[in-house]
Amino acid sequence: MRIAQAQMNPRLGDFESNAEKILSMSKLALEQGCDLVLFPESTLFGYLPLDMLEYDHLVEAQLKVFRSIEKSIPKGIAVMIGLISKAPKKSGKPYMNSAALLQKGQKSRIFSKELLPNYDIFDEARYFASGKIAQNVFKLKSKKFLVTICEDIWAWGIDGYPSHYDENPILKLKEKNLAAVINLSASPFYSGKLKLRHEVANALAKRLKAPVIYTNMVGAQDEVIFDGASFVINAHSQVVVQAPRFEEALQVFELEMGSAKLKTSVKRAPDDIGTIFSALVLGIHDYVSKTGFQKVHLGLSGGIDSAVVVSLAVAALGAENVKGIAMPGPFSASESLSLAATLAQNLRVEMFELPIEKTYDAGLKDLQKAFGNFDFGIVHENLQSRLRGAFLMAYSNKENSLLLTTGNKSELATGYSTLYGDMCGALNPLGDLLKSQVYALARFINSEQEVIPEGIIMRAPSAELRPNQKDQDSLPPYDELDKAVQNLVEKSRSPKTQTEKWLFDRLAKTEFKRWQAPPILKVRSHSFGRGRRMPIAAKY
Amino acid sequence: MRIAQAQMNPRLGDFESNAEKILSMSKLALEQGCDLVLFPESTLFGYLPLDMLEYDHLVEAQLKVFRSIEKSIPKGIAVMIGLISKAPKKSGKPYMNSAALLQKGQKSRIFSKELLPNYDIFDEARYFASGKIAQNVFKLKSKKFLVTICEDIWAWGIDGYPSHYDENPILKLKEKNLAAVINLSASPFYSGKLKLRHEVANALAKRLKAPVIYTNMVGAQDEVIFDGASFVINAHSQVVVQAPRFEEALQVFELEMGSAKLKTSVKRAPDDIGTIFSALVLGIHDYVSKTGFQKVHLGLSGGIDSAVVVSLAVAALGAENVKGIAMPGPFSASESLSLAATLAQNLRVEMFELPIEKTYDAGLKDLQKAFGNFDFGIVHENLQSRLRGAFLMAYSNKENSLLLTTGNKSELATGYSTLYGDMCGALNPLGDLLKSQVYALARFINSEQEVIPEGIIMRAPSAELRPNQKDQDSLPPYDELDKAVQNLVEKSRSPKTQTEKWLFDRLAKTEFKRWQAPPILKVRSHSFGRGRRMPIAAKY
Repeated sequence: MRIAQAQMNPRLGDFESNAEKILSMSKLALEQGCDLVLFPESTLFGYLPLDMLEYDHLVEAQLKVFRSIEKSIPKGIAVMIGLISKAPKKSGKPYMNSAALLQKGQKSRIFSKELLPNYDIFDEARYFASGKIAQNVFKLKSKKFLVTICEDIWAWGIDGYPSHYDENPILKLKEKNLAAVINLSASPFYSGKLKLRHEVANALAKRLKAPVIYTNMVGAQDEVIFDGASFVINAHSQVVVQAPRFEEALQVFELEMGSAKLKTSVKRAPDDIGTIFSALVLGIHDYVSKTGFQKVHLGLSGGIDSAVVVSLAVAALGAENVKGIAMPGPFSASESLSLAATLAQNLRVEMFELPIEKTYDAGLKDLQKAFGNFDFGIVHENLQSRLRGAFLMAYSNKENSLLLTTGNKSELATGYSTLYGDMCGALNPLGDLLKSQVYALARFINSEQEVIPEGIIMRAPSAELRPNQKDQDSLPPYDELDKAVQNLVEKSRSPKTQTEKWLFDRLAKTEFKRWQAPPILKVRSHSFGRGRRMPIAAKY
Repeated sequence: MRIAQAQMNPRLGDFESNAEKILSMSKLALEQGCDLVLFPESTLFGYLPLDMLEYDHLVEAQLKVFRSIEKSIPKGIAVMIGLISKAPKKSGKPYMNSAALLQKGQKSRIFSKELLPNYDIFDEARYFASGKIAQNVFKLKSKKFLVTICEDIWAWGIDGYPSHYDENPILKLKEKNLAAVINLSASPFYSGKLKLRHEVANALAKRLKAPVIYTNMVGAQDEVIFDGASFVINAHSQVVVQAPRFEEALQVFELEMGSAKLKTSVKRAPDDIGTIFSALVLGIHDYVSKTGFQKVHLGLSGGIDSAVVVSLAVAALGAENVKGIAMPGPFSASESLSLAATLAQNLRVEMFELPIEKTYDAGLKDLQKAFGNFDFGIVHENLQSRLRGAFLMAYSNKENSLLLTTGNKSELATGYSTLYGDMCGALNPLGDLLKSQVYALARFINSEQEVIPEGIIMRAPSAELRPNQKDQDSLPPYDELDKAVQNLVEKSRSPKTQTEKWLFDRLAKTEFKRWQAPPILKVRSHSFGRGRRMPIAAKY
């Protein structure tokens, strides 16, 4: 039996265009002689639907398009898509996160997810009633398949991924002689996630003595990046096929390959900084295109963060869709401007100069007239940053271009940033990267040729908001800080060292800034954003 | 038997000071001859703890303080507090939302919540394992009590509050001869909520043929306002006692009152605009004090929204802790400034004048130098708003004062506001009020004497960002808009009318602004903020 994995990139809520993709990929699979084509979780609606599910008419619209797909699928191939279905019970949550099996001329069958993730960015218990995977069995050409959806196969309690459930429903299954276990996923990327997926699928394949066909979504949705990387693993722990990451793909394989013990299997490559680069490029691309924009811009300060972001943006959208704006102020080094110009040249990005000094002087004078004279300090620093923010947003308004913000995770953790200033933006591509990872990304970008001038990589980080300012005047050394951010934010550990205690206190005191931060592309298991929900008016 | 309801205002995470309050209120109850004192849900930790529960050391610290309370409670009174306890099972969620019964010299008993709300602002399935209310029975002086926690008693599916659960655990209870049902709550205020609470408690009292002792938290936490209003209702649908709203209280009653059929019972007053006024005053007060601030300020535009917010702030913090800043720009009517000044005088609030015109001219010149000349439009409008935002934040930085923002729900729904401009602020007190409710609040504030000048109430709303601008040039008439906001946002209905279709589209297109909005005080059942989770890069 020949099976296709349709690693599709849906647009959330765009049922018609998602349906078109489902149909065209199904036809392609049929042309390649497939008996079955598998799509990711929530293919038709897109994922994460969030509170769009509070609007009945949106789910109804999805179901209407579903019925039209039922009529349009080609003869000769079974099609399995992810679908938001109605729960049969009248009370409790109204919907189920389901897989639908469509075959021309037959009544569609629905299989529903049992384990509903309710942690990190996931709130599935908010929307969905639970199914029973024990009921999710179907036969095709006398072969028996078990259907699972994403989280259903994650309750092993493996190292690096503790179980969130009392019981693992896989361990209660009595099914034998399965031809394969199907899993439809919308599994978000983070560094190391593919290895975890291989591990859970491997445990599953061994337990049920059947290959696991793992089909994942690709594409980005606000903060979340789905990396695809669909695969098949057999009961001998061999990865039989492995689809590419960060792009749509139709992967075809023979089911017999999954059942046999092979001489060679697909190598599993570990995640590296290049993987994160690709993830962020997809994240930027999809955010811009799925919000209906074409162009982005950002402030080029001559520092490392904006240098990396502009490089990512060019990779995502092309140089012609990216603009750099240099905004020298009273404390900018002349080197900053020249480094930014070289960077822009290297990337063939158009750069404007927009000095803030005159407006800054006028603003300061107006403030002093109203409030009397005051010493140089935080008011002066933040005013510069906020004027830059206002200018960058003026360009947004004028050119219908999205502003990218450039803060990294270490900076966000300490609140070393100006709310409504350098935090302005539609999207934050580096907000889940430690400062050290930003440098690693810069080195990666430069691996073939010098794109980011070495001068930008080598100079000491500075906000340039007062004379001779250096980040390290206000912050612990970045290697120490990064480690503290890892321990406190990424591992939820209790603060132990001096730096960690300082940081834990800073985290609490600066939560109000992150509350108002733009979406941050998620590339780590624990990130700032909607998946981390901390209070502001609290003691901790 | 004499029982006290300790309607306490805890500070989230401040275990020591919460413990002190628990002890002092317990002593007070003992002095008044009580046998039992009841505190709200999660008394010791505070509520909503959110992802503070991801940090084991914080829960450990709470449990340590709990053990010290066990030692310190006075002899002669049983004390029941809300406690985050450890779940007995090793896998699954680590904690339970519990009630602890403490008696001097005896081992404390723990009773845990069964129904875990996972909708709106609630994510309890994210943190907690479920208990069984059937096990939550204890005896005190040979009287039998059943313990429930908040949501446990809300699964009736009553009109106005649909059940989120397959089953109502109350209906499965076999207990008889209960002296009373205890409910510890942290039930957020919204308009009409007390009536709902009376209804669910009434259904419970009738079903179990026992009085219900409903003890609620008071105080505000970021977006959420707990209104207290603890009460006892008996099996004859009579409210026996009713504690005040929006303030701490120790309410004492005889259990026999709850069992008897009384000649008169406490009148249930419906919520009105005055209730919302009190809720917002508490919300502002607690946000400011629990973040460790004393002072607030805001821009006084001469419009209705800022007039109402400054009045609320004075009621919450006293005029000496509130400053008004008038920031006339190129398109401000002179009337705006004089109305703002009269308002400030009426409230005895100090007002500064801080014109933006010179900075605006300088900024515009800088922008035109960089980007060439461009026609008057959105760039000019937003620049004014963002300069005001930067100036107001400069005052924040200079004076360690929190900025209040003034947008209302109708404005937020349409995105008729400038991100990083008039949306700047630490807290938004009116963000859950329709424009018509803002006017009603203004009338309420003026009910005894004219605080808000009639000129402010009567003039047509305007952002004053271009010549002769009126809100109604860009928006539907407010009465029509308010109705659409109610239908789409507050009732999650599908858009039907022309205005609703327009608004549904606006909601989707302006979600990016609300993603970055400050906390909004919640006074309605469906609000913008953390309880409404909509995607940005989607079609809907």
